[in-house]
Amino acid sequence: MSDKKKYLEILERAVEANRLRSFFAQYPEHPKAYPAEAPEKGAQAFRAHLNKDFDELLQGTPEGRAGEEVSPFTREALGIRYPLYSVETLLKNAAEARSAWRKETIEERALILVDALERIKERFFEIANATMHTTGQGWVMSFQASGPHSNDRALEALAMAYEELTRFPREVDWVKPMGKFEIKVHKSFHPVGKGISLAIGCSTFPVWNSVPGIFAGLATGNPVIVKPHPGAVYPLAIVIAELQQALLAAGHDPKTVQLAVDPPGKLIAKELAESPEVKIIDYTGGNEFGDYLESLKGKEVFTEKAGVNSVIFDSVKNLDAVVQNLAFSVSLYSGQMCTAPQNFYIPQEGILENGERIPYEEVVNRLRDAVYGFVHHPKMGPGTLGAIQNERTLKRVQGVDGLEAEVLLAPEAIENPEFANARTCAPSIIEVDAGSELIREELFGPLIQVIKTRDTEHSLQLAHDIAMEKGAITCAAYTTDEETAKRIEERMEEAFVPVSFNLTGYIWVNQNAAFSDFHVTGGNPAGNASLADPNFVNRRFVWVGHRKLAD
Amino acid sequence: MSDKKKYLEILERAVEANRLRSFFAQYPEHPKAYPAEAPEKGAQAFRAHLNKDFDELLQGTPEGRAGEEVSPFTREALGIRYPLYSVETLLKNAAEARSAWRKETIEERALILVDALERIKERFFEIANATMHTTGQGWVMSFQASGPHSNDRALEALAMAYEELTRFPREVDWVKPMGKFEIKVHKSFHPVGKGISLAIGCSTFPVWNSVPGIFAGLATGNPVIVKPHPGAVYPLAIVIAELQQALLAAGHDPKTVQLAVDPPGKLIAKELAESPEVKIIDYTGGNEFGDYLESLKGKEVFTEKAGVNSVIFDSVKNLDAVVQNLAFSVSLYSGQMCTAPQNFYIPQEGILENGERIPYEEVVNRLRDAVYGFVHHPKMGPGTLGAIQNERTLKRVQGVDGLEAEVLLAPEAIENPEFANARTCAPSIIEVDAGSELIREELFGPLIQVIKTRDTEHSLQLAHDIAMEKGAITCAAYTTDEETAKRIEERMEEAFVPVSFNLTGYIWVNQNAAFSDFHVTGGNPAGNASLADPNFVNRRFVWVGHRKLAD
Repeated sequence: MSDKKKYLEILERAVEANRLRSFFAQYPEHPKAYPAEAPEKGAQAFRAHLNKDFDELLQGTPEGRAGEEVSPFTREALGIRYPLYSVETLLKNAAEARSAWRKETIEERALILVDALERIKERFFEIANATMHTTGQGWVMSFQASGPHSNDRALEALAMAYEELTRFPREVDWVKPMGKFEIKVHKSFHPVGKGISLAIGCSTFPVWNSVPGIFAGLATGNPVIVKPHPGAVYPLAIVIAELQQALLAAGHDPKTVQLAVDPPGKLIAKELAESPEVKIIDYTGGNEFGDYLESLKGKEVFTEKAGVNSVIFDSVKNLDAVVQNLAFSVSLYSGQMCTAPQNFYIPQEGILENGERIPYEEVVNRLRDAVYGFVHHPKMGPGTLGAIQNERTLKRVQGVDGLEAEVLLAPEAIENPEFANARTCAPSIIEVDAGSELIREELFGPLIQVIKTRDTEHSLQLAHDIAMEKGAITCAAYTTDEETAKRIEERMEEAFVPVSFNLTGYIWVNQNAAFSDFHVTGGNPAGNASLADPNFVNRRFVWVGHRKLAD
Repeated sequence: MSDKKKYLEILERAVEANRLRSFFAQYPEHPKAYPAEAPEKGAQAFRAHLNKDFDELLQGTPEGRAGEEVSPFTREALGIRYPLYSVETLLKNAAEARSAWRKETIEERALILVDALERIKERFFEIANATMHTTGQGWVMSFQASGPHSNDRALEALAMAYEELTRFPREVDWVKPMGKFEIKVHKSFHPVGKGISLAIGCSTFPVWNSVPGIFAGLATGNPVIVKPHPGAVYPLAIVIAELQQALLAAGHDPKTVQLAVDPPGKLIAKELAESPEVKIIDYTGGNEFGDYLESLKGKEVFTEKAGVNSVIFDSVKNLDAVVQNLAFSVSLYSGQMCTAPQNFYIPQEGILENGERIPYEEVVNRLRDAVYGFVHHPKMGPGTLGAIQNERTLKRVQGVDGLEAEVLLAPEAIENPEFANARTCAPSIIEVDAGSELIREELFGPLIQVIKTRDTEHSLQLAHDIAMEKGAITCAAYTTDEETAKRIEERMEEAFVPVSFNLTGYIWVNQNAAFSDFHVTGGNPAGNASLADPNFVNRRFVWVGHRKLAD
């Protein structure tokens, strides 16, 4: 590896960044930070892949081909045919690759993975197109989320693994004084990966949600099988292809990481997950399958499922700035983020704006108007909303009339100037009674509910209780009162939910930063893992300490 | 706390020791390192507790009393009556204590726990007597295992928790450059304990196996309920009483830790474990109940169960030194240690001693003779063997005749000069066919089996496979060949078993040292936790990171 020194520096900076948790990004999020020709080259590469066999993977002769991706923007099939391998083949390959990979040094494994990230960087713009036309994310988000942000999250997990794997000395001379003599024992401490790792991807953030587990799994000495969502294979396929190139370049079996595409009409995640050789599972997706995975015996399971995120209104300095910030948050990728706010709790007596009372109805109206204004802003709306990943989400939101709720803002398609066929839907707003069961349900997609509460304490109680019961990943709170802020923080903390206070401007509750923000706490039903805390890597290996009596 | 500075030094030394993993002991293991009058005072305190109500606990008016401990040495009831509390009361107390405890600073919590260890130290000799007359351990082992070694293991877990809880900054100013402006966010990172913790003790090592979980649980901000084995309450009751004194002295609710004694004829572990408020469970004991606990949903469960430990004979420098070392290992506490060797694999062609072949039969005979000689040595045998904790273990070993095996050394009572009624049994040795199912069973207590194998590879294969299938905590290997040593290490590592090579003299495979040896790897069915690796503490809390837009 020619760039060994540079890669080691990247790794060490990332380890330091994990410790400090202040701002750090290895991969710039702004597209202009990359070569001027990169966007067009990425678009060309994307077009060149359409309606062809995907033949970049280094995992042996395909046993078939499949591909069923459809662009949410054009509603046309991408026509990319991925190679198929049976579960048996995948497990056999992984088992064969494991022996050499787990015996490779910690340092070398880590440097190969940094090399892979640098290779992936070269394909950020192709990945952006691939992400856009599988997930429905707008272009900027597709670029940032699946490109630099994903690489940073992968590097974060890799750096956390590297720090943990090297935290104890490899060799120790243990000398116990026994009065007139000493006992001398030579000890060696080896981190040993638990076994084959399975990463199950989702359709909305195929790269961002999968790479932390993939990189943590590989870094800790485990071969990884990546089972993408059938609707969003392409972006992950590029990532796996580059990982395989990095492995090959270092003389390792490229099949140390494999892409496992579902054959037509058959989902293989369950069969893979239940295989006794699979010891580690990473999963992002719905609660039902996540709960099933968590119940499997003898596996380390890392989940990010769904939750009910809350917004607590108490008092503000500038209501306009607040509702504009929230309008962006609920519009971003049409609410298809696990971090998107959903339940908006507003006291029946309204809120204070600089000491002046704004009645409940006015708060609601201004929130609604801000959302409406934002999505209809020609420069902001369509690009931020992107498209709806799948028809079911759209149908559910369009059925909002059937809910026991008052519809304040009806679902509405927003024309996309670039893609006339885009499957779009602006956020719908409903008003729901605090006693309704509806407030305990995750409403995935562009649908938020306003809930009139007795007061802020009542809002807090509902937000806390629902987080404990159904899970929550984010909570946005608006209060200018320090005591109230403290109470909200403490109470939500009891439900293991991080609180973002008084966000306005260019920072949003649904975004969080690698190397600083832990994504999901792992403490409530929204998921049992956290990106990337020490548990996220330590649960993937065990320490084995051998002893030898010294001569 | 007057000794704050001293306690902080103890803590910091322990954190450093965890990192270095070379020899360290905060609490000397030699009884003579303690005041000359301490042994007699401890014995007096022990006698003063017999046949009385145990009234040292600070957990409210008892709802009843119970106690059914019987000394394995005298076979007489201790007659100590412990206070009883309903599961409801225990959970209510714990929930009430939780709020203040979790809000206490990490530092203060840790110092209170060091204070508790220093208080416990003052009662080491009473604890030794209490341990001896509940577990059947000989006096020296009772002193060391439940006194200094337990305190060191507790301090090790506490120090690991302290390091993890303080590894990230509490407060961070996160400043993101945005070209012409910056986004400033103030972040705070809080480790939040998962909830009420339950520690389920065992009858053989009531203190040693329980204190790591208790201290890790408390250090990470969780109230702890300690459910001792009904046959070994007293040693843990002293520990809990001193913890409660330390809490009280620091102005905390003593009920932050509680002793939960089973009422007569009823075992409350299951009811406690299944209570939704209980989020963390530490358990040492049999596989069946351990597997059940591991299957409970929504709990962090830490288990140390049973396994089949192996000894692999290949080649030695001095066979006498080897069999003497092993004779001690199998005699120590009559094989009632989870780390005791059980399956002795000897190649059919014998082994090499300094290049000279010693036939299989001779190896077996010399092992048998060494065990026989050791247990009949008046100065060594009785004190090392101790007594058999319970009648069932004795009965099972006495039934050795009924097994499909050749009995090489029959079970035999060894007279204890101090206690004529002691329930004793020297290790029995059976020879079992390599194809027998018996070699896959844990034979708890003084019973080992010799297995004739084709060669060392066959030995290794059996040791590996049985460890993967049934679990194993230790493996002792004897080989003078470096290549063979490497192969054994690598293969056993694949079954997540640490190997001790060529131990002779004053170090034994069944002993391991706090701050250096990880006890149990957590990778095979012998248990899912390791004392005390980072997982042992990190799984007890989550990180919650709050954000506030800076003005």
